[in-house]
Amino acid sequence: MLIRDVRITPVAFRDPPLLNAIGVHEPLVLRCIVRLVLDDGVVGLGECAGQRPQLDRLAAVRPHLIGMSVFDTNGIERTIGTVLRAGTPPGGTPDPMGARNAFSVIETACMDAQGRLTGRSVSELLGGAVRATVPFSAYLFYKWAEHPPLDGRPAIPDEWGAALDPAGVVDQAKAMIEEYGFRSIKLKGGVFPPDEEIAAVRALRAAFPDHPLRIDPNCAWTVETARRVAAELDGVLEYLEDPVPGIAGMARVAATAPMPLATNMCVVAPEHLPPAIAQDAVQVLLTDHHYWGGLRRTGELARLCATFGIGVSMHSNSHLGVSLAAMTHVAAATPELTYACDTHYPWNRRDDVVRPGVLRFADGGVPVPEGPGLGVELDDEVLDRLHRAYLAARREARDDTGYMRRFDPAFDPSPARW
Amino acid sequence: MLIRDVRITPVAFRDPPLLNAIGVHEPLVLRCIVRLVLDDGVVGLGECAGQRPQLDRLAAVRPHLIGMSVFDTNGIERTIGTVLRAGTPPGGTPDPMGARNAFSVIETACMDAQGRLTGRSVSELLGGAVRATVPFSAYLFYKWAEHPPLDGRPAIPDEWGAALDPAGVVDQAKAMIEEYGFRSIKLKGGVFPPDEEIAAVRALRAAFPDHPLRIDPNCAWTVETARRVAAELDGVLEYLEDPVPGIAGMARVAATAPMPLATNMCVVAPEHLPPAIAQDAVQVLLTDHHYWGGLRRTGELARLCATFGIGVSMHSNSHLGVSLAAMTHVAAATPELTYACDTHYPWNRRDDVVRPGVLRFADGGVPVPEGPGLGVELDDEVLDRLHRAYLAARREARDDTGYMRRFDPAFDPSPARW
Repeated sequence: MLIRDVRITPVAFRDPPLLNAIGVHEPLVLRCIVRLVLDDGVVGLGECAGQRPQLDRLAAVRPHLIGMSVFDTNGIERTIGTVLRAGTPPGGTPDPMGARNAFSVIETACMDAQGRLTGRSVSELLGGAVRATVPFSAYLFYKWAEHPPLDGRPAIPDEWGAALDPAGVVDQAKAMIEEYGFRSIKLKGGVFPPDEEIAAVRALRAAFPDHPLRIDPNCAWTVETARRVAAELDGVLEYLEDPVPGIAGMARVAATAPMPLATNMCVVAPEHLPPAIAQDAVQVLLTDHHYWGGLRRTGELARLCATFGIGVSMHSNSHLGVSLAAMTHVAAATPELTYACDTHYPWNRRDDVVRPGVLRFADGGVPVPEGPGLGVELDDEVLDRLHRAYLAARREARDDTGYMRRFDPAFDPSPARW
Repeated sequence: MLIRDVRITPVAFRDPPLLNAIGVHEPLVLRCIVRLVLDDGVVGLGECAGQRPQLDRLAAVRPHLIGMSVFDTNGIERTIGTVLRAGTPPGGTPDPMGARNAFSVIETACMDAQGRLTGRSVSELLGGAVRATVPFSAYLFYKWAEHPPLDGRPAIPDEWGAALDPAGVVDQAKAMIEEYGFRSIKLKGGVFPPDEEIAAVRALRAAFPDHPLRIDPNCAWTVETARRVAAELDGVLEYLEDPVPGIAGMARVAATAPMPLATNMCVVAPEHLPPAIAQDAVQVLLTDHHYWGGLRRTGELARLCATFGIGVSMHSNSHLGVSLAAMTHVAAATPELTYACDTHYPWNRRDDVVRPGVLRFADGGVPVPEGPGLGVELDDEVLDRLHRAYLAARREARDDTGYMRRFDPAFDPSPARW
């Protein structure tokens, strides 16, 4: 049960040209697989973002974790906080959010290891699954047909094709729902003028009369625009996600919006909860174990939300199967999480590091893996391939805006632009 | 890991004549020991109040728990809620607090069983102990020298003697601290006019210059009185507990009190948190796993409190060693719990159902038991003796007020009487 080694493996994998308010996804996503190797040979798995600051944090805490028990997540949290505070450069500002990111992936790997050590699934360790299958939503994106040729690199097509207008969005939804069976739909917005996106939502409603619908423009709108869109989509949206920046702005929209407002942008840390609650800025919180402090903290957060009458959904970033398994376990064991969760998995599934057979979608949901821990195993060959792709890419950060400007030098991602 | 039997054993044990705002403790405390007997022979222990409504709730849910996994505490919580709601008499009001009381003891027993099944202590299952020893406070009471003769029963003396004035309170503190080493002191007040209790606090301060001090009049004061007492004890009290009834009243006192206000009376359920927080009525919450939904919920509650800048302490009722072990494990694994916890244990220790050797006080704290689960075992002979005492007592409820009126028929326990 004692940590003998912490193996930190950054990886890169393919991503389609998905459009959002700040630009377009690059051809490769950076991600990181963490393996806690215990003294008795058990290995606990975690997955997190693969940007340089996170890798630096994990490298900094790594030697301090050796010898600690995977059951001592309180001690590990404290150790990580202490090490990273001590590592703040002179004159620099401590970064509790960064420390939480680092702890989150270690905690997840600890919970996986605890499950393997005790023969219990992670959802059992979290209090037991209240649902055998966790519903996810179809996460639609406006997208180009291909990554355009660049710097001598040829175009990179993908299987999904273009989606640049309501018809394209509906076609994408049909293809994704055909394959996965999703029963809720989320459209990443903030890409086109709001009236075009309203038209896309109405087209989705016409094509899928019974699917709950959401749109997430990632703070691309002004308060006035958001209020207008909310009024126009009254009775159409299940919730409206992050229409405007900031808690105060969200509160102004919430005061008139007929549907709940959701966020994963203005409430991303414990200190954001008191003002958001005091101002009734948010009616649905999208949790994310990758930055809220791991799996247990996510359950605690859900309980806090329920105490204040706030609904609970789940946020996603581009991810692989280790994260999908963790998201599924924590969602299964969280009674308060009653909205279908977000997942980027369909966009990135071709490169999964997890051995096939355990993770699958059935009617839009992922059945909770039954084996000990997270219930998934790594495919060492794929991991090695994706790690070599990471090394070859020589990239350290995600830059949707910079990539977009390679094609549209005047692109301006400033928030609240409409 | 499946529950094969739920053994519910009400017990009665000796209690000294401790005075409080609503009367005086009767000669016997009612309590209940719960044993979850699993299919593989493991037994998980819990302890809770032994009043009739709690026993009725446990009897009602008992058959529905048979066959459930002790790892499925989410399912058990839902089952208990469903069964007790269904058992609400026609025209009656559902009692979520009662359901939480019933779940709390079952959850504790499940966590004990989980620990025994996995070879882990309960504090490890809760994220790991952040302190090897949990500090408790000396819980002082005004008291009579003995239970007076009644209905032909002779007087029942005890080892502690009378404490009816400042000198008596100080003598009691000295005796208790001599034996247990407590480093914080709480005085149960609301018994004498406030000026007498202020004098007692001042006498404690003189005798123990470095011990944090608290007083808890159990809502016996008006807002005006509470504000005056708070001002007079500025710089003397660590916190002032439940001076007045209700969240609104506490908020009025908090607005002028120089020290934090604490409560285990106006915030005892999740629905009390939003108004208390909105009104800044409480600066320290006394948690209690016996009515907040068990050990995990207590940790979640502490995290919620920390999110809103509320300190965390722990409440106690008259209890035996199973509860003391549970309180110690959850307190050890809760980083946010930074105040010394309350415990009645010194008043009731002579009758403990737990086998000697594990639970002990060192310098006012209880070292966290190291064995699997709660780390304590029942003494079957003592359990049988206390159960027979329960049967012989033919009592079903605690009645401090009724007992007091046997000696003082005019006794009036109305709140805010000073």
